[in-house]
Amino acid sequence: MAADFNQFLEKDIEIIENALDKYLQCLSTDYKIVCDAMSYSVKNGGKRLRPVLVLEFCKVCGGDISKALPFACAIEMIHTYSLIHDDLPCMDDDDMRRGRPSCHIAFGEEYALLAGDALLTKAFEIATTSTASPDVTLRAIRELAQKSGVGGMIGGQVMDLLNEGKNTSLETLKEIHLLKTGALIECAATIGCIVANADEEKVQAAKTYAQSIGLAFQVMDDILDVTGDCELLGKPVGSDKNNEKSTYVSILGLEVSTEMVEKLTDFAKESLDVFENEAEFLKQLADSLKSREK
Amino acid sequence: MAADFNQFLEKDIEIIENALDKYLQCLSTDYKIVCDAMSYSVKNGGKRLRPVLVLEFCKVCGGDISKALPFACAIEMIHTYSLIHDDLPCMDDDDMRRGRPSCHIAFGEEYALLAGDALLTKAFEIATTSTASPDVTLRAIRELAQKSGVGGMIGGQVMDLLNEGKNTSLETLKEIHLLKTGALIECAATIGCIVANADEEKVQAAKTYAQSIGLAFQVMDDILDVTGDCELLGKPVGSDKNNEKSTYVSILGLEVSTEMVEKLTDFAKESLDVFENEAEFLKQLADSLKSREK
Repeated sequence: MAADFNQFLEKDIEIIENALDKYLQCLSTDYKIVCDAMSYSVKNGGKRLRPVLVLEFCKVCGGDISKALPFACAIEMIHTYSLIHDDLPCMDDDDMRRGRPSCHIAFGEEYALLAGDALLTKAFEIATTSTASPDVTLRAIRELAQKSGVGGMIGGQVMDLLNEGKNTSLETLKEIHLLKTGALIECAATIGCIVANADEEKVQAAKTYAQSIGLAFQVMDDILDVTGDCELLGKPVGSDKNNEKSTYVSILGLEVSTEMVEKLTDFAKESLDVFENEAEFLKQLADSLKSREK
Repeated sequence: MAADFNQFLEKDIEIIENALDKYLQCLSTDYKIVCDAMSYSVKNGGKRLRPVLVLEFCKVCGGDISKALPFACAIEMIHTYSLIHDDLPCMDDDDMRRGRPSCHIAFGEEYALLAGDALLTKAFEIATTSTASPDVTLRAIRELAQKSGVGGMIGGQVMDLLNEGKNTSLETLKEIHLLKTGALIECAATIGCIVANADEEKVQAAKTYAQSIGLAFQVMDDILDVTGDCELLGKPVGSDKNNEKSTYVSILGLEVSTEMVEKLTDFAKESLDVFENEAEFLKQLADSLKSREK
C-alpha cells in the first residue's frame, strides 16, 4: 500500500512539475533575470503539498484533473511567492531556504521582490486558462484571491509580524496558522472540488480535512524544529527558540504537541468518509505528513 | 467645452473613488495595519488616469460602466501596488510619493511590502465580481494579468533596473516605457472595450490611443522633471539628472521632447476616428495630459 501511495504521489508531482516548467518559460531575454529567479524558487524542491491536494480532491470528486492542473500550478506559485517575500530582509531575513540560498541572496533583493510579484500575477494568468466552464473558473479564481489575500494568507502574515517577540496564546497561534499557512492549503482542497463541480457537502469535507492537516503540518514543523535533523530539514534546528518565537512545543510541550498531531490526522481522515472508498490516497497523505522527517 | 470636460472627469473620479472605498473596507482589526497601508497609498491623490480610461472606453463602445467599474478599481490597485514596491529601499528608495511619506516610511517596510502584495491580490478578487458575462470577465482578467505581469509592467521594471546608470538609447527607453507604464495604460483602454463587447477594430484603436498617450505622459514627466514646480509635483525637480537617469530630455533635448508630446497627442486623437463623435472626452483627455503641470 505504501509503495502504491509513493508511486501515485510521484506521478502527481511529475504532472505538476512538467506543467510548472511549461508555465515558467521565459518569452524574452530582456527580463530573463527575473524569469530565472522565478524558476529558481519554484523548482527549489518543495513538497508540492498544495498542488497535489488540488489534483487529488478533483479526482475524488470525479473531476477531470486537466481542468484542475492550472489551479494546482497557480497555488504553488502563490505559495512560492509568499516564501520569497517572507525571506526578504524586511521580513524574516532568512538567507537559506530548503538548503539553498534564498532568492534574494541568489539574485539580489530587487529581483527577488519582482520575482515574487511576477509569480503572484502569473498565478492568476494561468488560472484563467483552465478548461472548466467560465463560471466555475471564475468561482475558483475568486476563492484563490480571497484565500491568498488580506483576509487569508496575507492577514496571517500580518498577525505573525504583530505577534513577534510576544508571549502568544495557543488560541492566537492557531488563528495565525489557520490564515498564514492554512488558508492556502484549504484553498487548494476547495478548488479541487470546485473544478469537479462537487456538491457543498464534499466542499465542506475537503475544507475540514485541509484545515486539520494544515494545522498538523504546522505543529509538526515546530516539533521538527526541536527534534529534527538539520541536514534533512535544510535549515538549522532550534531556530524558533533562538528567535524567541512562541510555538506549539513551547506552549504545550513535546508530548502534547505530538498527541495533537495524532488527533488532527485522525480527524482529517474521518472527514473523508463522504468520499467513501475513493479517498485512500488522501488518508495516506495525512499519515505521511505526520511521519515526515523534513 | 473645457468646463464640461472637467465636470465629466470629476464625475468619473467620484464614481471610482467611492468604489475604491467600498473595496478597501477592512474586515478585521487583526490585520488593520495593512488595510490602513493599502488605503493610505490608494487614496494618495493619484490622477486616476487608468480607471478613467476603463470607464470612458467602455462608454464609447456603448457598454455599461457598472460592468467596467470593478476592473477600473482593480487596475488602480495594481498601479498603486507597483508604486509602493517601486519606492522600497531595495528598488528606487524613494521616501516621498506625491508630497507625502512613501508607504514604507509611513508604515514600515514589512507592511508596505505586504500592502503591495495585498493590493495586487485584491485586484484579482475584485475583477471576478464584474457582472459582465463569465467568458468576457475571464478574458479581461487574463488581459489584466498579462499586462501587469512579467511580459508587461514587471518586465519593464526589470529592464529599467538593468539599464540604471547606463547610457540608454532612445529605442531602449521607449521599450522600457511601453512596458513599465504603457502596458497598464493600454490594458485599461483594452479592458474598457472588452467588457463592452467591442469589435477588434475598436480594441486596436483603443490600444493605439493608449500607447500614444502613455508615451506622451512619460515624455511629459521627463520635461516636468526639468521645467516643473516642485510644490505642484510633490517631489524635487531635477531628480532624474541627479540620479544620472537617461530621459527623453537628456537624449533629445527639451524642444524635440516637447514636439514629441505634441505629435503623440495628435496621433492618439486621430486613432479615435473609429468612435466617430463619441470620443470627444477622450480627445480632451489627451490634450489635458499634454498641458498638465503635475
